Amino acid sequence: MIITVTPNPALDLTWHVDRIVPGGVHRADTGRARAGGKGLNVARVAHAQGATVRALTTVGGAAGGEFALELRSSGVPHLLVPVVAETRRSIALVDEHLGDTTIVNERGINPSNDEWRALLDAVGESLVDAAEAGENAPVLVISGSLPPGAPAELLPSLIIAGRAAGAAVIVDTSGPALLQAADAGASVLKPNAAELAEATGISDPLAGAAELLRRGAELVLLSMGADGMLAVTSDAVVQARLQTPLAGNPTGAGDAAVAACASLWAEGVREPEAILRRATAWSAAAVLMPLAGEIHDSWPSLADALLVETHDFAPEQKDPR
Amino acid sequence: MIITVTPNPALDLTWHVDRIVPGGVHRADTGRARAGGKGLNVARVAHAQGATVRALTTVGGAAGGEFALELRSSGVPHLLVPVVAETRRSIALVDEHLGDTTIVNERGINPSNDEWRALLDAVGESLVDAAEAGENAPVLVISGSLPPGAPAELLPSLIIAGRAAGAAVIVDTSGPALLQAADAGASVLKPNAAELAEATGISDPLAGAAELLRRGAELVLLSMGADGMLAVTSDAVVQARLQTPLAGNPTGAGDAAVAACASLWAEGVREPEAILRRATAWSAAAVLMPLAGEIHDSWPSLADALLVETHDFAPEQKDPR
Repeated sequence: MIITVTPNPALDLTWHVDRIVPGGVHRADTGRARAGGKGLNVARVAHAQGATVRALTTVGGAAGGEFALELRSSGVPHLLVPVVAETRRSIALVDEHLGDTTIVNERGINPSNDEWRALLDAVGESLVDAAEAGENAPVLVISGSLPPGAPAELLPSLIIAGRAAGAAVIVDTSGPALLQAADAGASVLKPNAAELAEATGISDPLAGAAELLRRGAELVLLSMGADGMLAVTSDAVVQARLQTPLAGNPTGAGDAAVAACASLWAEGVREPEAILRRATAWSAAAVLMPLAGEIHDSWPSLADALLVETHDFAPEQKDPR
Repeated sequence: MIITVTPNPALDLTWHVDRIVPGGVHRADTGRARAGGKGLNVARVAHAQGATVRALTTVGGAAGGEFALELRSSGVPHLLVPVVAETRRSIALVDEHLGDTTIVNERGINPSNDEWRALLDAVGESLVDAAEAGENAPVLVISGSLPPGAPAELLPSLIIAGRAAGAAVIVDTSGPALLQAADAGASVLKPNAAELAEATGISDPLAGAAELLRRGAELVLLSMGADGMLAVTSDAVVQARLQTPLAGNPTGAGDAAVAACASLWAEGVREPEAILRRATAWSAAAVLMPLAGEIHDSWPSLADALLVETHDFAPEQKDPR
């Protein structure tokens, strides 16, 4: 079972506008509301591809009510921890003429310590349920930002709870939390090149990945934009990329990569090349979809057409090519 | 009592962003949600200034739930008719750097005929309540757009119901509905110069106002932007303007003018000059406030400083100056 935790969920609201004029008044059809946040996107993709998932997050206020309603109608299994603070909103205005999207993300309101404790308890119960239900070890995915002011021990506590229950833990975060996650025992980390450089202070991506491995990660999935993706372990570097980059909506591409990794790991598959092939294909197939949390059915043919290279890797070796 | 009807209500959502970059990703603090629509703004202003009001509108879906919650907390007396369709949203992104606001208004979803009937019934009941409670005749205010596809007879039915109950009926609308309102017996109409020209096909504002009077209106309040406001009746034209135009937020200025007219009419005052003074002052005082539906406490001093001119007027006389 894949358990996803979204510490800073958002009600994603999207409107399509003919042409956005700053300072102007626009007419639009009814917007679309969707339970959002990176962990939710991971759960949606993995669920749609047949994995057993449970999405965990907090909900509060009117936006939280709408979030819960949409999530219920999506069919993705979930467990929602009620909190007092209003669930944040994320606003997307799609300019139909230019094709670009203007986004406003609310920062989110930090739940109380008791509410965080309830989320940790829900994670603990879900890990027990997963252990009782599944043949393979559960996979705990923690994705996205934390609300401003979230307790420093929250992310390590989640990771430690997962590892203690025998779960693999995949963390998709950025900033100081990335190093914190590696130190607390995250199995897989998925930064992009800029996030990795910012968190480690090391500009070379392979040296940065080596730093995360040194701190305890087993696998680093490193997204490199148009250059595809790297899977880095303590003894191999695999690179995969499309022959031609795809145009589309990059939001949610990283979440699809995490879903791919989690779904294989949940099946007991840990080979970096297999993970990277699926992660790159699902990521590319997400770019073809208008909404985050969905991947295009053509992903198997994208996976077949990938350019994949594998090199030996030792952490002291900075560029194996 | 002032009864306001808002046929196309909106949940107004406002975010403040440091600087809006089209196609960019922005962070914002939690947005503000507010029960909106022009009739709601009228009710808020009149209620805050001590008038007895009841705001009537329809609500549906999650946005409607949030609308109802906010309206309840505002303290403005109201009667909400439940409908199946989701209440529309209106999105405002305030650029803190430039000071301008980018707005996206959903068009709204037309309620069913049965739901419109329930709104008409609620208006009827409120007119009876008003007649039983008040010393003066009630004032029915119908403000704002209709949802696309709304029945053609809706606006005339509302006006006829109001007049049949002995109420004065003030209508703030635009397009063909403006002429329709005059024909159905609206007592007061409040177009701006552009709306009047568009609806009547007459470019001269006084001649356009005369056309509305000819069709049955008793008073036309005509907003002229920086040139202030005109009150036109079959025998007088009054013009009022500020000595210096005010900078600020013009959204809701027209609604404040309607609230001024409604509040005086509800007190039995029908002199065009008295109405115009208050309408112009409340309208200017609305420009000083960040949100529609509020007016600044300084309105009495704005009223004292108005430049007011009164001329005789006969409809065939196009420019009395």
